[in-house]
Amino acid sequence: MSRYIGQSLPRRDARLKATGEARFTADLSLPFMLHAAVLRSPYPHARIVRLDTSRAERLPGVKAVLTARDTSGVKWGVFRYTRDQEFLAREKVRYVGEEVAAVAAESEDIAREALELIEVEYEILPAVFDPLSAVADDAPRIHDHAERNINIHVPIHVGDVDRAFDECDYVHTERTVSEEESYFMTEPYAVLAHCDRQGTVEVWMPNASPHTKAKGLANALGLPVSKVHVRHVFVGGAFGGRSDMFPGEYIAARLSQMTQRPVKLVYTREENSIAVRQGHSMVVESTFGFKRDGTLHAVDVTAYMDGGAYSSTGPIATSVPFLCFEQTYRVPNVRYNGYRVYTNKPIRGMIRTHGRAWACNVDMQLDLAAAALGLDPVEIRRRNAVRTGDTTPTQSKIFKMDSLATIEAVAEASRFREKWGKLPKWRGIGIGCVSVMSGFPMGIRGGSAAMVKFDEDAGVTVISGVVDNGQGNENVVLQIAAEALGVAPDAIQLVASDTEVTPIDQGAYSQATTLCSGNAVRLACEDARRQIFEIASDMLEAAAEDLELEDGKVFVRGSPSRAVPLRNVIRMGLLKGKNVIGHGSFGPNVDQTREWIKNPKGQLAAAFSYGSAVVEVEVDPETGFVRVLNAWVAHDCGKAINPKEVEGQMEGGLAMGGHGGILLEACKWHQGANLNPDFLGYKVPLAPDMPPIHPFIVESEDPFGPFGAKEGGLSISMCTAQAYSNAIANAIGTHIREFPHTPDRVLEAIEKGAVTGDG
Amino acid sequence: MSRYIGQSLPRRDARLKATGEARFTADLSLPFMLHAAVLRSPYPHARIVRLDTSRAERLPGVKAVLTARDTSGVKWGVFRYTRDQEFLAREKVRYVGEEVAAVAAESEDIAREALELIEVEYEILPAVFDPLSAVADDAPRIHDHAERNINIHVPIHVGDVDRAFDECDYVHTERTVSEEESYFMTEPYAVLAHCDRQGTVEVWMPNASPHTKAKGLANALGLPVSKVHVRHVFVGGAFGGRSDMFPGEYIAARLSQMTQRPVKLVYTREENSIAVRQGHSMVVESTFGFKRDGTLHAVDVTAYMDGGAYSSTGPIATSVPFLCFEQTYRVPNVRYNGYRVYTNKPIRGMIRTHGRAWACNVDMQLDLAAAALGLDPVEIRRRNAVRTGDTTPTQSKIFKMDSLATIEAVAEASRFREKWGKLPKWRGIGIGCVSVMSGFPMGIRGGSAAMVKFDEDAGVTVISGVVDNGQGNENVVLQIAAEALGVAPDAIQLVASDTEVTPIDQGAYSQATTLCSGNAVRLACEDARRQIFEIASDMLEAAAEDLELEDGKVFVRGSPSRAVPLRNVIRMGLLKGKNVIGHGSFGPNVDQTREWIKNPKGQLAAAFSYGSAVVEVEVDPETGFVRVLNAWVAHDCGKAINPKEVEGQMEGGLAMGGHGGILLEACKWHQGANLNPDFLGYKVPLAPDMPPIHPFIVESEDPFGPFGAKEGGLSISMCTAQAYSNAIANAIGTHIREFPHTPDRVLEAIEKGAVTGDG
Repeated sequence: MSRYIGQSLPRRDARLKATGEARFTADLSLPFMLHAAVLRSPYPHARIVRLDTSRAERLPGVKAVLTARDTSGVKWGVFRYTRDQEFLAREKVRYVGEEVAAVAAESEDIAREALELIEVEYEILPAVFDPLSAVADDAPRIHDHAERNINIHVPIHVGDVDRAFDECDYVHTERTVSEEESYFMTEPYAVLAHCDRQGTVEVWMPNASPHTKAKGLANALGLPVSKVHVRHVFVGGAFGGRSDMFPGEYIAARLSQMTQRPVKLVYTREENSIAVRQGHSMVVESTFGFKRDGTLHAVDVTAYMDGGAYSSTGPIATSVPFLCFEQTYRVPNVRYNGYRVYTNKPIRGMIRTHGRAWACNVDMQLDLAAAALGLDPVEIRRRNAVRTGDTTPTQSKIFKMDSLATIEAVAEASRFREKWGKLPKWRGIGIGCVSVMSGFPMGIRGGSAAMVKFDEDAGVTVISGVVDNGQGNENVVLQIAAEALGVAPDAIQLVASDTEVTPIDQGAYSQATTLCSGNAVRLACEDARRQIFEIASDMLEAAAEDLELEDGKVFVRGSPSRAVPLRNVIRMGLLKGKNVIGHGSFGPNVDQTREWIKNPKGQLAAAFSYGSAVVEVEVDPETGFVRVLNAWVAHDCGKAINPKEVEGQMEGGLAMGGHGGILLEACKWHQGANLNPDFLGYKVPLAPDMPPIHPFIVESEDPFGPFGAKEGGLSISMCTAQAYSNAIANAIGTHIREFPHTPDRVLEAIEKGAVTGDG
Repeated sequence: MSRYIGQSLPRRDARLKATGEARFTADLSLPFMLHAAVLRSPYPHARIVRLDTSRAERLPGVKAVLTARDTSGVKWGVFRYTRDQEFLAREKVRYVGEEVAAVAAESEDIAREALELIEVEYEILPAVFDPLSAVADDAPRIHDHAERNINIHVPIHVGDVDRAFDECDYVHTERTVSEEESYFMTEPYAVLAHCDRQGTVEVWMPNASPHTKAKGLANALGLPVSKVHVRHVFVGGAFGGRSDMFPGEYIAARLSQMTQRPVKLVYTREENSIAVRQGHSMVVESTFGFKRDGTLHAVDVTAYMDGGAYSSTGPIATSVPFLCFEQTYRVPNVRYNGYRVYTNKPIRGMIRTHGRAWACNVDMQLDLAAAALGLDPVEIRRRNAVRTGDTTPTQSKIFKMDSLATIEAVAEASRFREKWGKLPKWRGIGIGCVSVMSGFPMGIRGGSAAMVKFDEDAGVTVISGVVDNGQGNENVVLQIAAEALGVAPDAIQLVASDTEVTPIDQGAYSQATTLCSGNAVRLACEDARRQIFEIASDMLEAAAEDLELEDGKVFVRGSPSRAVPLRNVIRMGLLKGKNVIGHGSFGPNVDQTREWIKNPKGQLAAAFSYGSAVVEVEVDPETGFVRVLNAWVAHDCGKAINPKEVEGQMEGGLAMGGHGGILLEACKWHQGANLNPDFLGYKVPLAPDMPPIHPFIVESEDPFGPFGAKEGGLSISMCTAQAYSNAIANAIGTHIREFPHTPDRVLEAIEKGAVTGDG
């Protein structure tokens, strides 16, 4: 009997964004604001022999010059034991683009002019640019503490893998390689910071979790968290790329501390490509063993990820690809070794698509096994799909997940079984599946809280740390509040994502928002309901448990005429000194150990969603150009709070993970310098590139999610990659092992395939 | 065992205010801001025959012209049945200065130029300027609904007054008259309003209760309260004069709605004197009857108050002077008729000193009775003082009030009894007493709520609607929170007085802040403590009720070594999904009926404070100049949360109520036009005018107040007026019946007294 859950209500920010009124960080200004610019390393690996800022300091209009000498030396890393990055290089630079100094000046022009007056003498060191070279014994050492440049090693061993392979009827090894992806948010990274005379620092910046940013920044600045107020601001996309701490926010805040004036720093397009993050490039070698009936019995995977110069969110990126796999396909025997390796390249972080080389390797293995064992690709996935009640190798219980329904939805809608093997030449169809976890903590704070208060006229204000990076998260919590309170969403105000006033929130990553922020808001509203019913109980002479709240009225269940307007109840509460304020707190029931990396075992997340995609393509054998004819995507989101938003996430996921990830996106390098930092050189899919997309929402009613909801579509950004890759393989008769599958690689594969007959 | 209660901690705003960094409303600006100006009536009473704004609208730079035609016609008044004022005059103007039209333009100069282009044709009506003329049968009618121009009539009848007078041994009648006082805050009244494209209105303005302002403004604008966000801003004094709704805030908000741009309106000094509020002028006739032993037995009082053109907060001003009296001195038989009368003068509202003509009349009666009955002024007050356990004629129970201690404190310190009758010629000593109520609602919302949240590092943020007009209210709630949480005040952040994020608060009037806001904060912190102890109970393996919280540590009572840092408890809560958020709500236990004016009976307030003052003066018989030699003031504040702040309030109260009120302050008029709107013409006391002040804090430990506190010193602004007036009478041998006692009146009284031998 949902009234507001399941409604595709228009987004609150739609009008502001469509009219250009929404103000992003770079649009903001404060009185007496200074402008900052950053001096970056021109070398991939070098010792700083001399750093002289005196000429820059003397330039009229320059108010402060910041180097590592002016910092506390605190290092950043998501875990205590991965803290390896100072926000300004101290003795060495480790990649082209690393922050060496920064200037705050009366104008951006002056700041940039001052950068040229800073004298730096470098002693150039040998550098290394790919993970396999970096782990070689004679490779240059990038960090003193990291032998063979290994930053993180995630080892997972379950069962007896060697014996299991012996028990298999089909064993096959595949090696795949991917290049880096960039996030390419249309909003440039920018920070506005203001330190007042009492030492409180206000910060505006695109982010995925204001509370995480505040905590990291407070630590770096040596302040209590409550002295750092990360403010609400419109955010132009995140895709995992706004979760980490960046030197930019520290630099702006520190310069503001030094000058006691507001400081704004806006990155150029080029800086956005090197000084924020990219996705990890990878080399993945997998051996998969199947039983005759198509059952996956054992896997042995080694992945080398190019981490760039610092650890960043690397621990997460090193394990998540494997974790997504083990939630997707059942496998009793596992050996996984994930290595994140330091190289002299920019820093890599979490991205919406957790490694195309990995995910596509898995689904390639399934397709090859299906062919070898006489099954079709749909059937082998049906036989292996993880489902409700399963426990993963690392001991996560899957409480509810309707994997088969998503597979069936896309298989049927696409008529996959009919088309399989019967498509005309150069046409192909492919399928991919993936499961993602909702709200896993892994060292980053777990759980969210929310408050709800009422005006005297019963207007509702929800106070939540929820952050909206473009997904529509604000609508999600508003619809949840509306449902829980029986009040129209239009009558609800939202105070969101301001660390001064909103309680702690897990943030918009690890698919936590709907589950954690949503549940916190639901619980806060239910708490308020209880208080409302207590007050109304006297007014209506009925037991509180017999009361209902709908359409702004409290009434006795079954006797709707025995009613009192909510506004009167709120007012009566005020007169009685019972101001209704609800409070909700939700932490997913997971094993929140900091040692997860070292001993990866336990409940990883409270909820797991599942997505499946089928894609049909046509390949031009002359040019290698791939045309996508149709795409069918299905996602088990538990419950669609706002179906249009879920569909939007599915469509955006396909664009980024499938279309961009498989056909277009790759960062190009020369000696650690990025060659394609702009929109001309780095190709992202545009609207006219998009195929017709047919989205299917599967609702499994999650037992822990708010009103049954878990997560709104991330799986599609991953499984479409596999579907794209497999469809191309089906069209050209051979799999491509390098990602992305750009036309040159497609042509090359066609040529090679004609020779080897692979696929 | 208080650690933070009773400490004179420095005020948080001290540095910002001392350095000029604190920003008041007139200092604010927003991008694309327009400037407003108001066209005011030049006549005290006139019909608007024609109003043509077309020339003004055509002036380049003018963005909107607002008249009553552009408004909803909603009327303002604190009670539903006293709503008589539109924020822009529609058919008539009723005082010189009434708002007729307003302009928003690109600059203030353009806005003022546009005012001159607005054509208004008036038909001048006969006007009336004093309350006694206004109630005459042939007086011009100012409002159609008000016969004899009587706006409000408060009748209070208890006992049998006529028979009681027959039982008295001494009966005397006195008539006193006062002029109006102006508030003369140093901050000019200003409003900045911004209506965004989604219809939400943000407003900054000096105020005494953001929630009350938001409610009134929402009603006038036809918006839900949650669409009006009154923001925190520094406020440069209130003294009761920021409590009402003013046309200025409506005008700025409405112009912003019309233009979709921010609009700022700053009043000139002259506008501050006529378009905000003044205190009521009064004519008071009292008959007091005493028994031979000095016991006050009956009073019959009729007061006519000049209300100006609209009712404003008049219902409160019409009853509070009497209520303060009946809490101060016991009297079993009472007849009170308070009339607030419409005149063609600016609107009068609540002021910190609730009517010097009234209060001084009472204390003059006591002094005259004492003389007639052979008592000294201290003794007659001791015999009549209301005290703990009493019930007032209107049925308020006095739960705790240490009146006698305050009388004794000032009598002893001043050596009143020794000096009485023995001072040299032209020297005089006088005493005055008064009780004030804390947190009475009288139709304005009662009660306050607060929230408290914790950062991951156990930093505390208190979220409270408390507003600080200069008294130091923010320190008060911070010290209360510190005490309740066992955390140093420095570690606590305060989010205050922003209607979007802070829960409802009664506001900084009716002496409510310490009692209501303070209790709400205390309860919120106690709620948080309970949650903290629940989490820590597991960690310390001890029952929650055996735990203590001090200095940022939770420990087992009696075993301080069994301790855990609060930060760890907060973090453990996060990991368990128990984010500590406290919520407190406090409503004073009073009779919150809207019909109080019509039937004044019931518990008026939860707490009553008491103040006594003795002043010693020397009068120059040649010039009439009064020099104040010393002042002793004592106030029962329940408990001084911050003694320096209480003393500050006592000193400021003497300056305003005693020194300014009795010696200096009066608004002067000609045909309804104010003649002394500026600091040259209107004399307020300056620092060098001040006498030595000896403050005494009496702590009676209020049973309902937070840590025993009730109110911080308002009584002194009233009782010092009586002490000043009586001391002058003692010096010159006769009482002066007109207020203030300016040198001309002192000289006149000396001359008359020499003839009549009065006093």
